[in-house]
Amino acid sequence: MFRLYDDMSSGNGYKVRLLLTLLGIPFDYVALDIDRAETRTPEFLRKNPNGRIPLLEIAPGDYLAESNAILFYLAEGTQFMPQEKRARGAALQWMFFEQYSHEPNIATVRYWITHKVLTPEREAQLPTKRKLGYAALDVMEGELKKRAFYAGEQMSIADIALYAYTHVAGEGGFDLSNYSAINAWLARIAATPRYIPITFRPPSRPQAA
Amino acid sequence: MFRLYDDMSSGNGYKVRLLLTLLGIPFDYVALDIDRAETRTPEFLRKNPNGRIPLLEIAPGDYLAESNAILFYLAEGTQFMPQEKRARGAALQWMFFEQYSHEPNIATVRYWITHKVLTPEREAQLPTKRKLGYAALDVMEGELKKRAFYAGEQMSIADIALYAYTHVAGEGGFDLSNYSAINAWLARIAATPRYIPITFRPPSRPQAA
Repeated sequence: MFRLYDDMSSGNGYKVRLLLTLLGIPFDYVALDIDRAETRTPEFLRKNPNGRIPLLEIAPGDYLAESNAILFYLAEGTQFMPQEKRARGAALQWMFFEQYSHEPNIATVRYWITHKVLTPEREAQLPTKRKLGYAALDVMEGELKKRAFYAGEQMSIADIALYAYTHVAGEGGFDLSNYSAINAWLARIAATPRYIPITFRPPSRPQAA
Repeated sequence: MFRLYDDMSSGNGYKVRLLLTLLGIPFDYVALDIDRAETRTPEFLRKNPNGRIPLLEIAPGDYLAESNAILFYLAEGTQFMPQEKRARGAALQWMFFEQYSHEPNIATVRYWITHKVLTPEREAQLPTKRKLGYAALDVMEGELKKRAFYAGEQMSIADIALYAYTHVAGEGGFDLSNYSAINAWLARIAATPRYIPITFRPPSRPQAA
C-alpha cells in the first residue's frame, strides 16, 4: 500500500491526498510538522534528500518526491491523465506554470501569513509576490475563458495541481472576487465525486503492511 | 515545422534547442531579447499570456510553453523518455526539482550577474539564493553517487533539464570544483552525439513554411 508523508497544512500535499481519494486508492498517512522541521531530520533526509513533503513511498524504501511528479505517476492510465500527447503537454505546461509562477507567490504568502512567520525580510518581498501572484491568476482566468479545464474539456491533474493553492489563495490575502471564470472552475472541481476538502485528514493506518 | 521562440542567453531555451538537435529535428528559430521586453509585447502575449520563452509553436497558432513541458512533449516515444512508468515519475521529479529548487536560485543569480541587473534589492537576496543553490547542487551530487543519470542508467530529459543551468552555474558565481559526481556527469552529457553548446545559435530560417 502507498504511504504518503505529508503535512496537513500543505496544498502540495493536498494535491496527492485529493487525487488518491478521487481514484479510490487507499494509503497510509504519515503526518509530519514542517514548522517543527520534521522534514529535515536525518531520518527523513534519508527518504528525501531535498527535505520536502509530500513524499510518496511507492514500495518499501522506494520514494517519489515533488507533488506534481506524484500526480503524473498516479494518474497514468486513469481519467485524470489526458489521452492525447498534445493534451499531456498542456497538462504539464500548466503544472510547471503552477510550480514556477503560482506556488512561489500565492502559496508562499499563504504560508507566511497562516503559519505566522512573516519576518521583516519577507514583509519586504510581499509587494512583489502579490503582484506576481495576481499576474498568475490573470493568466489562469484568461485560459478558463477559453475552456472548462486546463488540459481540455475534462478535469485532469493540471486542474488538481492548480486548484490546491488557488482555492485557498484568500488565506494569503489574495482577493478572487473579480475572477469569475476561476470561481466557476473552483466550483466545478469541488463538485467532483469523492472530492475531499483540504482540511480532511486521512485516517491513520498501521505503519506495517 | 516547429518554430522556437527563444532568447539565446536562456538556459531554459537551451534545453529545447539541445533536445531538438539531439533528436535531429529541424526547427525555425525566432530570437527575442528579454532585456528589451520582447516577450512582453502585445503580439507575444497573444502567443504566451505568461510572457516567457522558450515557446514552441507546434503547428501554426498552437503554442506550448514551459521548457520542461516542451522537453516531455518532444521526447515522448524517443530514447530520451524513460520507458518505465516508475522512471518517468523519477524524470518528472527531477524536472520539478529543477524548476522549484534549482532554477530560481542558480539560474536567477546567473541572470542577475551576466545581464548586469543586480539591484540593491536583489543583492540582499543573494546570500539566501546562494545557500539554496548550493543545497540543490548537494542534492544533485548525492543522487549522482548512486546512478549515472537522473532517471536511471540512460540519459533522459531530466538530465537535459538539469544540465542547462548547472553547466553554466559558474557564470553566477557558483563553484562546482568540489562536486566530482556532477562534473563527471556534465562531461558525459557533453560527449553525447550531436551535442551543441549553449552558445550555438541555430540558423535562422524563413518565417513562412
